Amino acid sequence: MALIVEKYGGTSVGSVERIRKIARRVQASWQEGNRMVVVVSAMSGETNRLLGLAGEISPRPSAREVDTLVSTGEQVTIALMSLALHELGVPARSYAGFQVPIKTDSIHGKARIEDISGERVMADLEAGKVVVIAGFQGIDSENAITTLGRGGTDTTAVAMAAALKADECRIFTDVDGVYTADPRIVENARRIDYLTFEEMLELSGAGARVMQIRAVEFASKYDVAFRVLSSFEDGVGTLISCEDSSMERPLISGITSVDNEAKVTIRGVPDRPGIAYSILNPVSEAHINVDMIVQNVGTDSLTDLTFTINQDDLERTLALLEPVVRELDAETVVGDSSLAKISVVGVGMRSHAGIATTMFRALSEKGINIQIISTSEIKISVTIDREYLELAVRALHNAFELHVAAGIE
Amino acid sequence: MALIVEKYGGTSVGSVERIRKIARRVQASWQEGNRMVVVVSAMSGETNRLLGLAGEISPRPSAREVDTLVSTGEQVTIALMSLALHELGVPARSYAGFQVPIKTDSIHGKARIEDISGERVMADLEAGKVVVIAGFQGIDSENAITTLGRGGTDTTAVAMAAALKADECRIFTDVDGVYTADPRIVENARRIDYLTFEEMLELSGAGARVMQIRAVEFASKYDVAFRVLSSFEDGVGTLISCEDSSMERPLISGITSVDNEAKVTIRGVPDRPGIAYSILNPVSEAHINVDMIVQNVGTDSLTDLTFTINQDDLERTLALLEPVVRELDAETVVGDSSLAKISVVGVGMRSHAGIATTMFRALSEKGINIQIISTSEIKISVTIDREYLELAVRALHNAFELHVAAGIE
Repeated sequence: MALIVEKYGGTSVGSVERIRKIARRVQASWQEGNRMVVVVSAMSGETNRLLGLAGEISPRPSAREVDTLVSTGEQVTIALMSLALHELGVPARSYAGFQVPIKTDSIHGKARIEDISGERVMADLEAGKVVVIAGFQGIDSENAITTLGRGGTDTTAVAMAAALKADECRIFTDVDGVYTADPRIVENARRIDYLTFEEMLELSGAGARVMQIRAVEFASKYDVAFRVLSSFEDGVGTLISCEDSSMERPLISGITSVDNEAKVTIRGVPDRPGIAYSILNPVSEAHINVDMIVQNVGTDSLTDLTFTINQDDLERTLALLEPVVRELDAETVVGDSSLAKISVVGVGMRSHAGIATTMFRALSEKGINIQIISTSEIKISVTIDREYLELAVRALHNAFELHVAAGIE
Repeated sequence: MALIVEKYGGTSVGSVERIRKIARRVQASWQEGNRMVVVVSAMSGETNRLLGLAGEISPRPSAREVDTLVSTGEQVTIALMSLALHELGVPARSYAGFQVPIKTDSIHGKARIEDISGERVMADLEAGKVVVIAGFQGIDSENAITTLGRGGTDTTAVAMAAALKADECRIFTDVDGVYTADPRIVENARRIDYLTFEEMLELSGAGARVMQIRAVEFASKYDVAFRVLSSFEDGVGTLISCEDSSMERPLISGITSVDNEAKVTIRGVPDRPGIAYSILNPVSEAHINVDMIVQNVGTDSLTDLTFTINQDDLERTLALLEPVVRELDAETVVGDSSLAKISVVGVGMRSHAGIATTMFRALSEKGINIQIISTSEIKISVTIDREYLELAVRALHNAFELHVAAGIE
């Protein structure tokens, strides 16, 4: 008899009919004798509807009240899911975040979980009930409702699995697992059977849209193995866990891409200590996320600093930097919003040289120019002209033979 | 500097524009230096939308989950109302029932308030904030969300006023006060300036739709004077409080009517002890509300028992009583669903004889036949053929000269 935590996102519970379907799936697992915890999001569209109401009233609504508002979305789903389970003869009980309770800090809109008391939930599980928990939300020390931000329901599921010492954590999504590349780009992309937390972190951070990075970080920190599965079709999905050293890992697990990168270059900066800080500090103060950063030492004690951001932030960033450029006596600041970033990720990279060589050769053979390179222990990312994105992903998928499953060697 | 509790129902907060309008009204009172508590319902239509979703899933949904579901309606309103106040530069903070907390028993769907802790709310008020509270909802000792049933938001407002020892409690509705009769029936019906709790209880119980009887009971029990006002126009409304003996009261305060009464008569019941119980017990067991009850002693030790119910319950009641009639060896059971009930209410009635005489004469002069009579200390009710309802109300309004304001004599 296993204790299983299952997470269903907004699309999976997007209608009464879909809620019924998920209830039948949960019923089946419960009938097999498993203790079931179901973590759900708001029905798809509901959060946007609520935010729309807030937006009609206030252009910059208070984060506390927005949390109170949008958290009703999941509360509706837990009630409906419990009712659907009751209809199938399954005893079920709903829990809003404050009822578990899932205690968080007070940073509304992106609160972090501080503590979860599993006692009440565990008592219901031991009494044979299915427990249905509202994802994405918690309660702070002042009894105010908080939300965890994007991907919050994944985080709730992983956190509940950790708190309850669950045997399994299943993240149901609209894809049937994590792929070696986006199947819309690479025809023979392959579902990956196993990934390490590190790989999943790098893939999520580098553009794979399957799961938010915070949930993966949480899973990694508390060593909660989880499986990414489709809520619409059967399958084993992808299991993400800590590295299993008994198994030979493939060199590269997957290739991921981001198509909305923009590049900002400040040219001719007098090269003295602290210039990177002078340039990047106003950018991060404005909550603009900086991705890759490169500094080229030039001639005449002048240097160029280049960094990448989301293209939506480009205009704002250029406006922010105009006065900085004048102040630093630099030559100019220029932006380019037509970039894509391609990353190859794999823990096997650690122990094998030559990954970068293979990558650069594959791109060069297709005539693709690399603009910026950045590397981590298990990831190499490059930016290229956006026009070449699909071509580059396919070339790399071929070069690393990702369509072939890596067996145990 | 007064502490004022204001209640706004679903119609008053039925759109973003209306919420903004209420916010401006609250702002004005706050700017005058008052400490403001605003109790709100779900936006009109929202509760029905949510119940519709539950109904799609389950024909008899669990009351606990329904409470979790529908309580989101008021939670949406408190957030939006707080945001609207913020936009006007008014510091405001929302409270769901569990955040106050408003503690109730565990009877989902019609929970009773057991305790309210006013400390948190009071601290916010003392810090100059407007406090916005979700009506209709509370939390039980198991941390489950409960709802108070019909008129629950009125009850929340009155209960908060009691807990905070408010100087004023204002119930904003879609009418501008309590009237001597329904203005749609009686052209010269007059808004009543003052009513006692008892009168308001009898009026509410006898069909006046301004306020639910439970809220009035609560106000009476805790001696919370409140004012019924229109949220759409200015005015002083009707003040309801304990009787002010220094003031001469009018004989009759108002006339109210119910147009959906039905009558059930069991004829020829052998007259022995316990027959009323045998007949009425199965009816009340089926949660059918019995209003008036009359027993006529007949000839031959046979008796007729007549009672009135809501006409929607008539068929079910007749079906229930068929076997009872056989069992009691009574003659027959017959129903009549074309009744109306007219009540005259007034504390002045206590000290004056002749009210009934005036009433019966006025009806007889119009050729209106009285079927059943029932009386309380400050109310006389009669049932008549529904066709005569408007005629009867107008005749009584004239007979008691209710269009003339009763001054202090």
